[in-house]
Amino acid sequence: MKRVLFTPGPTQVPSEVLEAMARPLIHHRTDEYRAFFLEATRLLAEHLGTQEPVLTLSCSGSGAMEAAAVNLLSPGDEAVVVEGGKFGDRWRAIAEAYGITVHKVSVAWGRVATVEEVESALTAHPKARLLFLTHSETSTGALFPAHEIARVARARGVATIADAVTSFGVYDLRFDDSDLDGVVWGSQKGLMIPPGLGYVCFSPRAWAIAEKAKLPRFYFNLVKARGALEKGDTPFTPAINLVLGSHAAVTLMAKEGRAAVFARHQRNADATRHALRALGFSLFAEVPSNALTAVHVPAGVDGGAVVKTMEQRYGVKIAGGQDQLKGKIFRLGHIGYYDDGDILRLVGAFEAALIDHGFRAEPGTAVRAAQESIRGAYLPEPALCW
Amino acid sequence: MKRVLFTPGPTQVPSEVLEAMARPLIHHRTDEYRAFFLEATRLLAEHLGTQEPVLTLSCSGSGAMEAAAVNLLSPGDEAVVVEGGKFGDRWRAIAEAYGITVHKVSVAWGRVATVEEVESALTAHPKARLLFLTHSETSTGALFPAHEIARVARARGVATIADAVTSFGVYDLRFDDSDLDGVVWGSQKGLMIPPGLGYVCFSPRAWAIAEKAKLPRFYFNLVKARGALEKGDTPFTPAINLVLGSHAAVTLMAKEGRAAVFARHQRNADATRHALRALGFSLFAEVPSNALTAVHVPAGVDGGAVVKTMEQRYGVKIAGGQDQLKGKIFRLGHIGYYDDGDILRLVGAFEAALIDHGFRAEPGTAVRAAQESIRGAYLPEPALCW
Repeated sequence: MKRVLFTPGPTQVPSEVLEAMARPLIHHRTDEYRAFFLEATRLLAEHLGTQEPVLTLSCSGSGAMEAAAVNLLSPGDEAVVVEGGKFGDRWRAIAEAYGITVHKVSVAWGRVATVEEVESALTAHPKARLLFLTHSETSTGALFPAHEIARVARARGVATIADAVTSFGVYDLRFDDSDLDGVVWGSQKGLMIPPGLGYVCFSPRAWAIAEKAKLPRFYFNLVKARGALEKGDTPFTPAINLVLGSHAAVTLMAKEGRAAVFARHQRNADATRHALRALGFSLFAEVPSNALTAVHVPAGVDGGAVVKTMEQRYGVKIAGGQDQLKGKIFRLGHIGYYDDGDILRLVGAFEAALIDHGFRAEPGTAVRAAQESIRGAYLPEPALCW
Repeated sequence: MKRVLFTPGPTQVPSEVLEAMARPLIHHRTDEYRAFFLEATRLLAEHLGTQEPVLTLSCSGSGAMEAAAVNLLSPGDEAVVVEGGKFGDRWRAIAEAYGITVHKVSVAWGRVATVEEVESALTAHPKARLLFLTHSETSTGALFPAHEIARVARARGVATIADAVTSFGVYDLRFDDSDLDGVVWGSQKGLMIPPGLGYVCFSPRAWAIAEKAKLPRFYFNLVKARGALEKGDTPFTPAINLVLGSHAAVTLMAKEGRAAVFARHQRNADATRHALRALGFSLFAEVPSNALTAVHVPAGVDGGAVVKTMEQRYGVKIAGGQDQLKGKIFRLGHIGYYDDGDILRLVGAFEAALIDHGFRAEPGTAVRAAQESIRGAYLPEPALCW
């Protein structure tokens, strides 16, 4: 049986990427490696819409979050954290681990914070000069209005740092045209490579803060990483084969074209949502992200059993809920290397497993709705993120 | 042309490991992944000679060093750092980045610190309760008497943390029988997988310190990592395919047998040293490590040109010196996946490139000496590290 990942990370890895990572290892202090690394870096920046340096760190996405935080904060600082899920809360946990006073803008998981809610917090806590938020909240499937929030924050002189772990490669972030001052992401999502690399990009404004920031850091010292990058290098031995994989992946993305990559994610998300709505589900997220679709486990259905049946009988691995949502939602990932046929496989396995577990639906409902959505697909709507 | 790495990290990766990493990605929250991860962890512990948990971190070896340091130190602490090379100095840089007062025991690069020198420092700085040192100093090829130093440190109630980045897999560290309280290493050396994973193992004594230590940490919180490991998990998404590679690698090492792995490194190191001595070189390191062999660049020879010729004409990549040794030494790596034939390839390319650049030697001198060493190989001497 084929087994296919449809989790919101790790995601499917194209065979071109697996092949690039499987070649005999090359040394990182060689012109050959530098050429791959710098070309990958260039294409990542192009994808992000920036002229600023994109830093590759050998760590998970959470490591990249910590790197952004410790390079921008100083002892005694306060920060505002927008939280509506597990990963929003991670910003709080990171900042508090370093003794930073955090003011949370919390919304119920599944909801997104409004610009007004964030503005109130910024007004209430004028000492906070940094705002941390999640763009696409992987634990709920909700898309936060990161760009609008960043706009009001910048108007008050507050720098916004976005966790773009499940929005990079899905949305056109247009970093340099935005009011965001930092974004972080990981390798195992829209970038289509295995986990193990984290990325950070700062605006010139964030770099000015970083040069003066006083929290301790060594492995995650981004000022040093930026200096090394200018020489095609990293301060520490990089995860070489993952970097070679990133080159292969971002090359695939560049060949497909940025607009096409974003449109494909929109099409896949639309088809998945259509299929789930046709089954009678309503979406869990107030504003759904194109990275994943979350829906409530229906009353009377054993969610864990459905996930297991999908995996064991149909070879399709999705995710359940995390933390307070454990057992309560399904999360169907469609971030990264997925096409129309994959979405049919995904929603087909989902409806089949639901029916296996007593859910009442006419067989074919979900795949038919997805197919209709795909067949009727038109040019994407303006990306929700702006 | 075949191109083969003989750098002291990254090192050659066996095809079994490349193959394990090139399979379609699996999810890390599955029984399948947990079985690989826990078996790799068990075999790593066995190799290290410990019953204590071996923690796998997604970072480079330097990240593992920082993890060890920040989990054992508290603000206001002092520490002794033994330094005789670039990586000994890294302990200082890490500790100082966190505001720790460091007392250095410095020896000339190439030398090793004596037990007496370290004892003097411990006497002079009784407030220091932690001692950081390098076992095999990758920048010089010197093997420090880590176990003897740890013994005198422990007698004074001082905990010793060793950078075993280029000694893990080379020497029988017998962690539980030693007086070491912590060791760290990376994936791209004796473990024969690409860079991207760091490892930490603590003694119960070190864990007692870690539970009370107060330096800030989040990504590198080892107490949390230990708790997660008990459930076959990691606090953050692991570098999945590297972990699968580690399983393949440590399985190969277990099949070969610990004693055979250590003996092979001894044989390879002996053969390399014989070959270089036959060419008229003396070893750079006062006490040479079995991980790599360093020798001075001879007067009148352009070291950089020799390294380049070895790479471009003979397909053999060795390393030059780092920092203050840049251009002054050659470093020939034989750590990891190397056998007799590899050593002939290594020293053959070295002597050929030297001769190409005007070095006076009878062609065949080095390969003949290596061959004699290999043919006369006997059971290994007691490992120098004890």
